[in-house]
Amino acid sequence: MFRLLEHAPAGYTRPLAEVLDALTFDAQGLLPVIAQQFNTGQVLMLAWMNRTALEETLHSGQACYWSRSRQTLWRKGATSGCIQRVREVRLDCDGDALLLQVDQQGPACHTGRPACFYHQLDQTGLRVCVSPPTPATDLPEISGC
Amino acid sequence: MFRLLEHAPAGYTRPLAEVLDALTFDAQGLLPVIAQQFNTGQVLMLAWMNRTALEETLHSGQACYWSRSRQTLWRKGATSGCIQRVREVRLDCDGDALLLQVDQQGPACHTGRPACFYHQLDQTGLRVCVSPPTPATDLPEISGC
Repeated sequence: MFRLLEHAPAGYTRPLAEVLDALTFDAQGLLPVIAQQFNTGQVLMLAWMNRTALEETLHSGQACYWSRSRQTLWRKGATSGCIQRVREVRLDCDGDALLLQVDQQGPACHTGRPACFYHQLDQTGLRVCVSPPTPATDLPEISGC
Repeated sequence: MFRLLEHAPAGYTRPLAEVLDALTFDAQGLLPVIAQQFNTGQVLMLAWMNRTALEETLHSGQACYWSRSRQTLWRKGATSGCIQRVREVRLDCDGDALLLQVDQQGPACHTGRPACFYHQLDQTGLRVCVSPPTPATDLPEISGC
């Protein structure tokens, strides 16, 4: 299906059920998903979705992933409040990766940093480039977002 | 290692060999890699790297991936000229995803479109949102970039 769509002009459409059946999930039934802040372009995190998580995300308008460590649906922000309101869902040319344009509430990273990509790598090694937030007693504890 | 780095302040460093040994490659020895255009924020594509591809990328300054379909190193742009000059390599909080800030030469997508995420998904289905480039006889054929 995606091979045929390579030659399709802008505006060409296919129904959702057909697209979901054609997605190239990996051996664990998952697709990698990039979450990007819609108005700044900052890449916030990379997570994973199975078909159910993608369907829920499309219907609810809030990002729902699959937690590989907990082996369960992960409704991001359900406990922390750090939800992602989805502005747009994009799929790549060969149907095996997703890009979500989101409006992130609070930090995207479980460390309390705004985004997960805070390690810089080069030929010499790794450099932490964003400090963790300073604990503040008047703010709720950050957990699981 | 990455659990300890969660609490490290900006500027903290670790040597490259230690970092490479601590990366969480998947069962195929791969990490997902996001390529983002450094000056526009556009997410260009998602690809994969094994340890060798990452080491080559860090040393050469040009993106080298692992082709899952061809099971070989994929020096992006080697045949098409559509190389990615790497401005920065970032690693995520738990060491299992990479973000490359690149300067893309020519189109990133093998279809000739600027980026791979040209399918928009919603509750009703898929919509192609970028047309393929018009063939032009005075331009070189796009292949494998």
